[in-house]
Amino acid sequence: MTKPIEIRNPRTGKLDYVIIPPPPKLLSQQCHRMRRGQIAWEEIGIQIRIEALQQWKQAILAERQNITDALVNDTGRLSVSILEIDTFLNSIDRWCNLAPQLLQTTAKNTSIPFIALRQTAVPYTLVGVISPWNFPLLLSTIDTIPALLAGCAVIVKPSEITPRFVAPLMTATNTVPLLRDVLNFVEGAGQTGAALIEDVDLICFTGSVETGRFVGEAAARNFIPSFLELGGKDPAIVLESADLDLATSAILWGSVVNTGQSCLSIERIYVAEAIFEEFYHQLVTKAHRLQLAYPTVESGEIGPIISENQAAIINEHLQDAISKGAVIHSGGKIEELGGGWWCRPTVITEVNHSMKIMTEETFGPIMPIMPFSTIEEAINLANDSIYGLSAAIFADPPELALEIGMQIDVGAISINDAGLTFMMQEGEKNAFKFSGLGGSRMGAASLKRFLRKKAFLIKTNTNKDPWWFHDEE
Amino acid sequence: MTKPIEIRNPRTGKLDYVIIPPPPKLLSQQCHRMRRGQIAWEEIGIQIRIEALQQWKQAILAERQNITDALVNDTGRLSVSILEIDTFLNSIDRWCNLAPQLLQTTAKNTSIPFIALRQTAVPYTLVGVISPWNFPLLLSTIDTIPALLAGCAVIVKPSEITPRFVAPLMTATNTVPLLRDVLNFVEGAGQTGAALIEDVDLICFTGSVETGRFVGEAAARNFIPSFLELGGKDPAIVLESADLDLATSAILWGSVVNTGQSCLSIERIYVAEAIFEEFYHQLVTKAHRLQLAYPTVESGEIGPIISENQAAIINEHLQDAISKGAVIHSGGKIEELGGGWWCRPTVITEVNHSMKIMTEETFGPIMPIMPFSTIEEAINLANDSIYGLSAAIFADPPELALEIGMQIDVGAISINDAGLTFMMQEGEKNAFKFSGLGGSRMGAASLKRFLRKKAFLIKTNTNKDPWWFHDEE
Repeated sequence: MTKPIEIRNPRTGKLDYVIIPPPPKLLSQQCHRMRRGQIAWEEIGIQIRIEALQQWKQAILAERQNITDALVNDTGRLSVSILEIDTFLNSIDRWCNLAPQLLQTTAKNTSIPFIALRQTAVPYTLVGVISPWNFPLLLSTIDTIPALLAGCAVIVKPSEITPRFVAPLMTATNTVPLLRDVLNFVEGAGQTGAALIEDVDLICFTGSVETGRFVGEAAARNFIPSFLELGGKDPAIVLESADLDLATSAILWGSVVNTGQSCLSIERIYVAEAIFEEFYHQLVTKAHRLQLAYPTVESGEIGPIISENQAAIINEHLQDAISKGAVIHSGGKIEELGGGWWCRPTVITEVNHSMKIMTEETFGPIMPIMPFSTIEEAINLANDSIYGLSAAIFADPPELALEIGMQIDVGAISINDAGLTFMMQEGEKNAFKFSGLGGSRMGAASLKRFLRKKAFLIKTNTNKDPWWFHDEE
Repeated sequence: MTKPIEIRNPRTGKLDYVIIPPPPKLLSQQCHRMRRGQIAWEEIGIQIRIEALQQWKQAILAERQNITDALVNDTGRLSVSILEIDTFLNSIDRWCNLAPQLLQTTAKNTSIPFIALRQTAVPYTLVGVISPWNFPLLLSTIDTIPALLAGCAVIVKPSEITPRFVAPLMTATNTVPLLRDVLNFVEGAGQTGAALIEDVDLICFTGSVETGRFVGEAAARNFIPSFLELGGKDPAIVLESADLDLATSAILWGSVVNTGQSCLSIERIYVAEAIFEEFYHQLVTKAHRLQLAYPTVESGEIGPIISENQAAIINEHLQDAISKGAVIHSGGKIEELGGGWWCRPTVITEVNHSMKIMTEETFGPIMPIMPFSTIEEAINLANDSIYGLSAAIFADPPELALEIGMQIDVGAISINDAGLTFMMQEGEKNAFKFSGLGGSRMGAASLKRFLRKKAFLIKTNTNKDPWWFHDEE
């Protein structure tokens, strides 16, 4: 028997939910059943798969309130939960529109007159998805939707920290007969995730660098592709020419949305000396206006810290910075309210790269600001990181920001806004450095990750000899 | 100090060459120097890089005789060495033609009116290539050429079994000033390869499954992409409708060229019952007509077995098959001639999948043939393998072969010929199962493996609020 895992509620601190991971043998049986189910799923073709996903969408709309309630219990916040569902539903439509043309077989011209090329692609049979707790619904489905449309079966292991949304989601899913054998969510923690990797043909992982390394090595051992989306320490650079009002609003949002629990949140800010005082004064003013979503979930913008472990990390980074001389202008501590852990938007100055708050992923609503005197210095500071996920640059004209962005080692750069990849998923990007590994999760490239390319090379002349004997033809 | 490695000559068995692997610190210094060199290489742009590669081509033409002589000493065979150089030179031209359009920055439309997308890509700084002994020049440069054009620096560690071609190749390379700091070949064995992985940003490996697993795991540990091209056990399927004369010629060639020392050589043959006797009789007849390239390198078609270790594996597979009842119709043993190891084209019947000769990679000029009664049986036999590199199907009409090919789990399928991927590198293909990992080495996709995608998302309206506050716009 497997041991039950008790789940903490982020608003009350109480263990009010329980999950029972499947015994390893049951997990293998489920994977085996899904492999068989995938054969028919691939054969029915893209149009029927699109119909099945549209039925799924309708089923989720019918179950929407229950899913929202569960997500609120999982994460302690409301508006981001609603955004998660909306983005997820839009994503189904977006992929249903894109998929048919991405799955076409093509005949290609070749440079050799007597060989015809037919280029096709076949889906990986069973895709595994291991997803984190910060956007439980969105990040457990971001890879799942294109993988299903590509013709794969998909088994998802969401984080054990936020598992409540799975039950209503599966209730909706199981009303769609076509999906029953090709889409499954399993509950469990690290052990279940590790077992899953042994049973799938491709693994998508979103989470920490440490676990990502484990996943990547296990996948390599089995010769299966792994797509890793890991941490970030996204910098923002604000030039003297920037629109200050815009920059402070965008950076505030980019740092505190979802209480900073986003891999692409702004975690460090570099501001031109000449506007440094004005910038942080504006930012502090705007930061003070935001309220905690306490005592009720509707009362303010800043939800609780979902993971108790993360609250300890944020606290550690704050204490480290303070002990080294950092100055706190707002927030600055972890508070316990009603059993949950909270952190108000925190603006910090007098920081430097000897502090964890400037180098390690904090994952909280923390805005440490450093002045710079030259653009070169700003670029060097931005690149002084083991991470390379994304960045934001504020400048006028935007061409100057583009030029600076070319020199920053990250995959996505928002110009005169923050976190634009969150809303606009058409730009293809790689995660640089320790921020990840594998093809782009964004844009058309995302779906192609789930296909193996297959080339048919057809001899078309009637010569009886193989090409070896007449390669001068 | 590092220990010298003595190199065996495949024709004489004598240790007549020596390599000295670089001390680890020197290797790191070289990599560091190349990283600095890469900055200018990327900046000069694709047109100058093309000019540099064309200069390289001219330099290699000037050094052609020395490179050929070295390759003949490395491998003991002549015509394939000439083919290697020709294919390598053609490949430079092919990539110089293709690269400019693959490196263009594009502006893309987006679904969001106030966000502009600029899609670009940047090269990985330093690419490592670890290449095998069966095609020493071709497989050490197949990834190197597109990586250089993409703007990467490339450091190559060729097999320690065939290192003689490196000296004349570097003589040619060093006459091209632009390449001096961005292209380097290092001599060494496994230890040098392992050290190399720790110093590069992307690794291309061609070789065995066992070493490939080590490379993949080490790369994952460092969060660098690995592209693995490993073994194969390529099947040929011959239907009753096949042109027998063509099928036997093509399969013979596909199996014995380069003495079977090719990952994409035909290693097992499934023939329709009705034509089984006729097929193997023709194949045996044609096999007997081929001669060993002994005593002189010009005397016949079949060169020596390059690796002494491989000769032992071929022998082991043959003995295993014979002990289990296989019948040898030609060749069938490892012979020692003048100090080298040789194997004549070997046709075997009465084989089955309990024998290593049908399941493990043999890498010799061995043609084991099994009859089948139904197409379904042929497909099942072809798929009964841990490998999934390529396959060949002979049938009339070719559409039937295409239909069968759709059900075979490999990345490239030659129809009415064998090993067409060797000559026609435009078809994009993945290696299935244990045959490899990572994007296609063939087609335009190959060059794109060396680029990291980078997306610029530019806010274009004048609204002072970030998108979060007006996402209904």
